Amino acid sequence: MSDPAPIILNGFSMNSVSHVNYGLWRHPRDQTHRYTTVDYWVELAGILDRGRFDMFFLADALGLLDTYAGSAAASLRTGTQSPVDDPLLLISALAAATTDLGFGVTVSATYEHPYLLARKFSTLDHLTRGRVAWNVVTSQLDSAARNLGLDKQIPHDERYDRAEEFLDVVFKLWEASWQDDAVVRDATTGVYTDPDRVHAIGHRGRYFTVPDAHLSEPGPQRTPLLLQAGGSPRGQRFAARHAEVVFVAGADADGIRRNVAHIRASAAEQGRDPRSLDFVSAVAVVVDDTARGATAKLADYKSFFDVEGALAHYSASTGVDFSHHDLDGVISHHDTDSNRSLLSMFSAADRDWTLRDALAPATGFGRSHTIVGTPGSVADDLEAWLAATDTQGINLIGVVNPDSYRDFAELVVPELDRRGRVRPRPTTAATLRRRLTGRDHVADDHPAAIHRRARLARRHEAAIR
Amino acid sequence: MSDPAPIILNGFSMNSVSHVNYGLWRHPRDQTHRYTTVDYWVELAGILDRGRFDMFFLADALGLLDTYAGSAAASLRTGTQSPVDDPLLLISALAAATTDLGFGVTVSATYEHPYLLARKFSTLDHLTRGRVAWNVVTSQLDSAARNLGLDKQIPHDERYDRAEEFLDVVFKLWEASWQDDAVVRDATTGVYTDPDRVHAIGHRGRYFTVPDAHLSEPGPQRTPLLLQAGGSPRGQRFAARHAEVVFVAGADADGIRRNVAHIRASAAEQGRDPRSLDFVSAVAVVVDDTARGATAKLADYKSFFDVEGALAHYSASTGVDFSHHDLDGVISHHDTDSNRSLLSMFSAADRDWTLRDALAPATGFGRSHTIVGTPGSVADDLEAWLAATDTQGINLIGVVNPDSYRDFAELVVPELDRRGRVRPRPTTAATLRRRLTGRDHVADDHPAAIHRRARLARRHEAAIR
Repeated sequence: MSDPAPIILNGFSMNSVSHVNYGLWRHPRDQTHRYTTVDYWVELAGILDRGRFDMFFLADALGLLDTYAGSAAASLRTGTQSPVDDPLLLISALAAATTDLGFGVTVSATYEHPYLLARKFSTLDHLTRGRVAWNVVTSQLDSAARNLGLDKQIPHDERYDRAEEFLDVVFKLWEASWQDDAVVRDATTGVYTDPDRVHAIGHRGRYFTVPDAHLSEPGPQRTPLLLQAGGSPRGQRFAARHAEVVFVAGADADGIRRNVAHIRASAAEQGRDPRSLDFVSAVAVVVDDTARGATAKLADYKSFFDVEGALAHYSASTGVDFSHHDLDGVISHHDTDSNRSLLSMFSAADRDWTLRDALAPATGFGRSHTIVGTPGSVADDLEAWLAATDTQGINLIGVVNPDSYRDFAELVVPELDRRGRVRPRPTTAATLRRRLTGRDHVADDHPAAIHRRARLARRHEAAIR
Repeated sequence: MSDPAPIILNGFSMNSVSHVNYGLWRHPRDQTHRYTTVDYWVELAGILDRGRFDMFFLADALGLLDTYAGSAAASLRTGTQSPVDDPLLLISALAAATTDLGFGVTVSATYEHPYLLARKFSTLDHLTRGRVAWNVVTSQLDSAARNLGLDKQIPHDERYDRAEEFLDVVFKLWEASWQDDAVVRDATTGVYTDPDRVHAIGHRGRYFTVPDAHLSEPGPQRTPLLLQAGGSPRGQRFAARHAEVVFVAGADADGIRRNVAHIRASAAEQGRDPRSLDFVSAVAVVVDDTARGATAKLADYKSFFDVEGALAHYSASTGVDFSHHDLDGVISHHDTDSNRSLLSMFSAADRDWTLRDALAPATGFGRSHTIVGTPGSVADDLEAWLAATDTQGINLIGVVNPDSYRDFAELVVPELDRRGRVRPRPTTAATLRRRLTGRDHVADDHPAAIHRRARLARRHEAAIR
């Protein structure tokens, strides 16, 4: 085997009180009650940046979680992803406060317009000096659809068809519209942009008409690093086609490994190098200098776990109202909705899952793998987890904020570094994509590269007149 | 007369190379070529904040300027508002770098969805600690409409009807949805939000359906301070109904004074105290320690003025292609389009205007009043300008950035301060609305206050269950 690769280390959070650490805002050391302040976020990002994390991954939802018992009461009461503020608006403050950290932000391709979304990510690619990533989602909440002008969700597969065209539009804007030498910035001749080097994209599709050129000059990455987390068959195909880093879930290590293999196979079918996709899964880590200390810390954290918050989230993400379910009954296949990925993953697993198991496969933090121990044992377990799942990194859950990030940065990162598993700090400013893949721009086998080739072919052709 | 009131001091800019200072990016001291970096904006905001400005006012446009000669070539070549990045995404970085400065950001009510726009401004109201203002616009560019899914602009008056409903929705979300005591944040009982104190807004209108509660808990101002700049008759009525600070234009002092009087009268007709509206106009200031120095500085600045950039902007904002016009011919009434405010203002003035005059009524910086001189003479002229126009403040154009802001802060502000015309620096953190009006929330006679009263009436009524 070759030398071990650096692990992709992402902090995982949401602009809300409780992300997937249900109830932990009540912990005396937790600072999430300060989530509406810029200082709180600057502090978290600084810990991750100094701690050599690669990315701060911010989830989002566009509706209150109101599937459980048919109301948002439980999610509001427990602070579970409700209320929820906009994550994109945090980024410039975090960019100014950090030097190397990347920012992966969830933005829906269902409720944004591609012409304006393209400008948003170009703006952030500028302001972060190429450190921004887009987690492409096709929103899943009925509550979002209801308040955003749709009586009901767009049918699931059509949402993905629309998202395909959405990506086609933004790829054209990012890759095909402005030549690399379009911005001349010549004070002597008075030319800021040479209009002959800016191309109208002329997009006329089924869902969108975008005839003109991109509003923004290209950012360092042009197309932001692309993240995706689709779990359904259609979502996995979409991820396989577009994602550079896939956030993958599964009932257990085997389930994740199967999903990774499936998405890699699908990527290969769609003409991409299957090993060019990286995978991360959500992991919670509780670490202390001693095993005894770690166990005590875990017990302390668990005592703050809020089952109602977990059920409110689980109901919203599966579309099944679990308010009348027996926590210890086996999850029925009849409850699954093929458009809802999470529950189908559990029910498709090799064993039967009770609701209680599904909520807390290990310890109850975000239905995700949880590793508890000393720096050495955590590093061992983490390496074993990555090998068992064929994933290349983690989205580290903030169980208690900012302690979970700080503990990992101070205790686990040095240990991983000794094992050659932490990316060296860049000596010069690097884009996020370069940090993870060695390239500033999308790979040649990525669908966006078609539009780069179109741009290069038009290099000597006068454009806007 | 009572003591002179503090002048509203706003810095006026845009996330682009040339805002209304056409060609000045070529000046050797100008730093606008750094507009894609966060450092540039942090530096500008810091100068304004330390210089006791009230607000950083950021314009925006959602299309390239392509009316002049039927193409975006001139605006791209001269960098005139093209390319243009997103202004909203700058704010959190500027909030983190400042303590008192407010941020007025232009966001279209035509191409955003009210449910998401409401969350954006609540998020920024949180992150700025109540220092955000929304400049409500109903976008005017055909190029924006074309790329955002409309073949042509929504007819002008219908745009305002839709904007009225848009505001009704966001006011309900900001004012009527969450009671002041909804966020309990009680770690002992485990209640973050008391769902009985959060109300679904149940909006079903002609343009929007928003049944549910606001996604965000209320910010310090709830409704951001409201700015407006409508120049057409319908736009003026809209401003009179909603704006707390009106950005007013006019061919000269008399024209501005007439517009102010008209909007105040319209506000009174619509049930608001006409003196509760404040007015600002765009002003350029070229100041130096000596009159000779100021004159030399002005001559230097004017030598970088780019007529083509001015024409590209003027064409886009009037809808008239001036590429074939004689600069010294009188502007014809036949050129005016009643839906385009700017040109009609000139052609309705008491005298005939040539295009050259209209472009540069004083010196050519943004078709705005320009004051040149020593700190003392600038303060005299500024006070006279405010008195003559019945305006309460200025949007100070950045002719050369950051010099224009720094010169004003260092030379003019101390002089105005001696005259009692600069707001004292707040001793404790204050919201932008409190700073300007003495209140954190909208006045009782403002349309948004209807929804505050609705909230207060529902105080003891259980809500989300």
